[in-house]
Amino acid sequence: MAKDKANRPKARLPRGFADRHPGEIRRTQRMMAQIQEVYERWGFEPVETPLIEFADALGKFLPDQDRPNEGVFAFQDDDEQWLSLRYDLTAPLARMVAERFQEVPRPYKSYRAGWVFRNEKPGPGRFRQFMQFDADIVGAASPLADAEVCMMAADTMEALGFGKDEYAIRVNSRRVLDGILSEIGLPEGDPRRLTVLRAIDKADKFPLPEIAKLLGPGREDESGDFTKGAGLDDRQSEKVLALLDPTADPQLSEDLVTIGEVVKRAGYDSVIIDPSVVRGLEYYTGAVFEAELKFEVTDDAGRPVRFGSVGGGGRYDGLVGRFISQDVPATGFSVGVSRLAAALAAREGASAADRGPVIVTVMDRDNVAAYQEMTAKLRAALNQDGAVVPVEMYIGDSGFKAQMKYADRRGSPCVIIQGADERAAGKVQIKDLAAGKEAAANIEDRAEWVAARPAQVEVDADIETIAAAVRAIIG
Amino acid sequence: MAKDKANRPKARLPRGFADRHPGEIRRTQRMMAQIQEVYERWGFEPVETPLIEFADALGKFLPDQDRPNEGVFAFQDDDEQWLSLRYDLTAPLARMVAERFQEVPRPYKSYRAGWVFRNEKPGPGRFRQFMQFDADIVGAASPLADAEVCMMAADTMEALGFGKDEYAIRVNSRRVLDGILSEIGLPEGDPRRLTVLRAIDKADKFPLPEIAKLLGPGREDESGDFTKGAGLDDRQSEKVLALLDPTADPQLSEDLVTIGEVVKRAGYDSVIIDPSVVRGLEYYTGAVFEAELKFEVTDDAGRPVRFGSVGGGGRYDGLVGRFISQDVPATGFSVGVSRLAAALAAREGASAADRGPVIVTVMDRDNVAAYQEMTAKLRAALNQDGAVVPVEMYIGDSGFKAQMKYADRRGSPCVIIQGADERAAGKVQIKDLAAGKEAAANIEDRAEWVAARPAQVEVDADIETIAAAVRAIIG
Repeated sequence: MAKDKANRPKARLPRGFADRHPGEIRRTQRMMAQIQEVYERWGFEPVETPLIEFADALGKFLPDQDRPNEGVFAFQDDDEQWLSLRYDLTAPLARMVAERFQEVPRPYKSYRAGWVFRNEKPGPGRFRQFMQFDADIVGAASPLADAEVCMMAADTMEALGFGKDEYAIRVNSRRVLDGILSEIGLPEGDPRRLTVLRAIDKADKFPLPEIAKLLGPGREDESGDFTKGAGLDDRQSEKVLALLDPTADPQLSEDLVTIGEVVKRAGYDSVIIDPSVVRGLEYYTGAVFEAELKFEVTDDAGRPVRFGSVGGGGRYDGLVGRFISQDVPATGFSVGVSRLAAALAAREGASAADRGPVIVTVMDRDNVAAYQEMTAKLRAALNQDGAVVPVEMYIGDSGFKAQMKYADRRGSPCVIIQGADERAAGKVQIKDLAAGKEAAANIEDRAEWVAARPAQVEVDADIETIAAAVRAIIG
Repeated sequence: MAKDKANRPKARLPRGFADRHPGEIRRTQRMMAQIQEVYERWGFEPVETPLIEFADALGKFLPDQDRPNEGVFAFQDDDEQWLSLRYDLTAPLARMVAERFQEVPRPYKSYRAGWVFRNEKPGPGRFRQFMQFDADIVGAASPLADAEVCMMAADTMEALGFGKDEYAIRVNSRRVLDGILSEIGLPEGDPRRLTVLRAIDKADKFPLPEIAKLLGPGREDESGDFTKGAGLDDRQSEKVLALLDPTADPQLSEDLVTIGEVVKRAGYDSVIIDPSVVRGLEYYTGAVFEAELKFEVTDDAGRPVRFGSVGGGGRYDGLVGRFISQDVPATGFSVGVSRLAAALAAREGASAADRGPVIVTVMDRDNVAAYQEMTAKLRAALNQDGAVVPVEMYIGDSGFKAQMKYADRRGSPCVIIQGADERAAGKVQIKDLAAGKEAAANIEDRAEWVAARPAQVEVDADIETIAAAVRAIIG
């Protein structure tokens, strides 16, 4: 069925999309199971929405985009209605709660993990499809709900093995900032508000004079690129910058005071009030949080850098109210799954690869049914009481050397070998691949192999004996 | 932020999409973990592809559609190239293997679960987004690989608790049929081939004379709808129908004979040769399989029906070769996740709902930090050694009765109550909600509650004592 080269499609992915490989998938899966366990312990239940929604239901709260309804993947349905791939998990949750408002318990505590899509210019480490893991409380106006989300985020970091000195859940409230913005003449709905939010959001990256430029006329970076500012005058800028002054007494809104008290009393020292946290999203209406990893990793240029943010969230009292005739308070937290998984990988260092399968080699094809039977029995023997020890028979067409190369590529701990001589004698050879790795590279054929037998044991060919020998090798 | 009704978007989902609720998510998650364990034991490793691909990379092998490139969700990228949401997991795997052909071990054994999309008319139980769980072997031409996939499918069914009499993995090979089709004048590429496949695919639903109509001019169903047939003449039809005659000796191709021998020797009685299996997909080139559940469930009209197919697959030697200059043999199996989960649910019957959280009620708001502290400590005490017992403090604004209603909706096993009197006495009340459910409905306020105390115990307010009392209730 192979076609002429000219007619062949090219095997490649669109920009900003990537395949995922075993190490990453397994690591992420373990991590997500730990997060889920924490969320369950706090009384949250799993609820999911589909990946496609009506575009109007997602609204125009697109993060990191100045223009509404840009940055999403959208397409028309048969009936001409616009559909979009979701860009986060919060807008679909709001739609779902509004749709089932009379059915859900309130407060409604739920969690979900899922892929989200941004139709943006991809870059290094910046994908157009990525995974989020959110937990939300809908229908609770109290700052207790915000405090709960922060404490659960802290429990999550600790369940993943981060120490109290390695992470912080930084909390602020938009209420003080919102008050100041209204006071200096940027009322709710003013487009400059988002620019101000984004400027403050950079306070962990740039010194205050640079933030001042972003609040004012704009800022030129080292490469000469110009970022347009919010256009505030000096008096306006000063009022905003005062919020970021680390030497001044912070101006705390009432909700923030309550959050601070609750987390302190509950012993969550890693949840800290920080007026520089704003989150670059327009829909937050009260508390905003950020989960930050404080340890250093090495950047692409070899310099040590703080790992930084791995998640965040806040109170979004307006989102459900977009659909129904009452405002519905809500607050939530979203983990950036790939980013957090990368942090775990960076901290673990180059961890040992996952173990590959035990491989039963096929020495003579006429006896393939016997190898198959040995494989099935060995698999059953090694996988008792919940143990997971992959076992497979080689099912390719190649000879011994290629089979050994295959075992090496798969990261097999050991291979089982039974040629005609061993079969006649009722024996098998078991080769320990970790121990024999160097030797194997130099062996050309079966005869040489038999002569050398590096890191190899011969045992009786009954399944219990073989299984015991394999267990001794894989430890 | 609530808008005028006229401007409000409607909270609803596009046709064919659905939200997923806790019971379904938890059941599916447990099931998928069991499937994954089987695949791992057989030496398959997890590999995933993104949800979006270039449309040309997905090809025109769209299942259940006569017209190429219809039935998918497609949209143009910034550079005008067409992108599609994947409609299965096989075409993207073929793209991935072609792209990384020199890097992957061969045979390449991998598995993946993920959402796929069909832009088709939705119907009852027929969604436009659904989940598949696939396992594939790429780079093995031998029928051993097909046999391995069938045996692994059988192990999967048994790991999920289906007995040998409850399921069958039915196997056939396209080679005999392909030979006959060429012989009667329908060479490879003839559009009538797909119509013939679909007619044979219905042999488990209709008697042979009805199949004959589908092979010939066409068939009118009870409702008067007409399905156009393949247009074969009587002589052609007879040759095809002979394959389905249960009284005749089946014509077995060589690959099918080998598969039959291997599975028999390995003791897989539930893997059976069945010439009526063809699968309605054009890209299969050899073995085809179907996993079928044989037990009966009740259909919408209350009639007992066989549950039927929960997965299938086959050999697709041409798919990778679409991209590169050599044919690459491949075979695989795909589980219909929702359908299999529905089967498990149907067999379990109305299983007990998942247990909700233990709820610490808030009797006086001034002491909320104390309730929070009790909650955190109780959560820690109940969640040791891997146990997952959800514990939460009520964080809404409502009074006692509403808190009890909330606990009921959440399926809480018990609630913890501490008012001013109990605090002064160093006690808490623990109410067993299962035992006290009927009584609770009639209780109007705290005073009446204290008088009645249905299914309620008073214990000392130290965490270990409370935890022990809760454990006694949840068992």
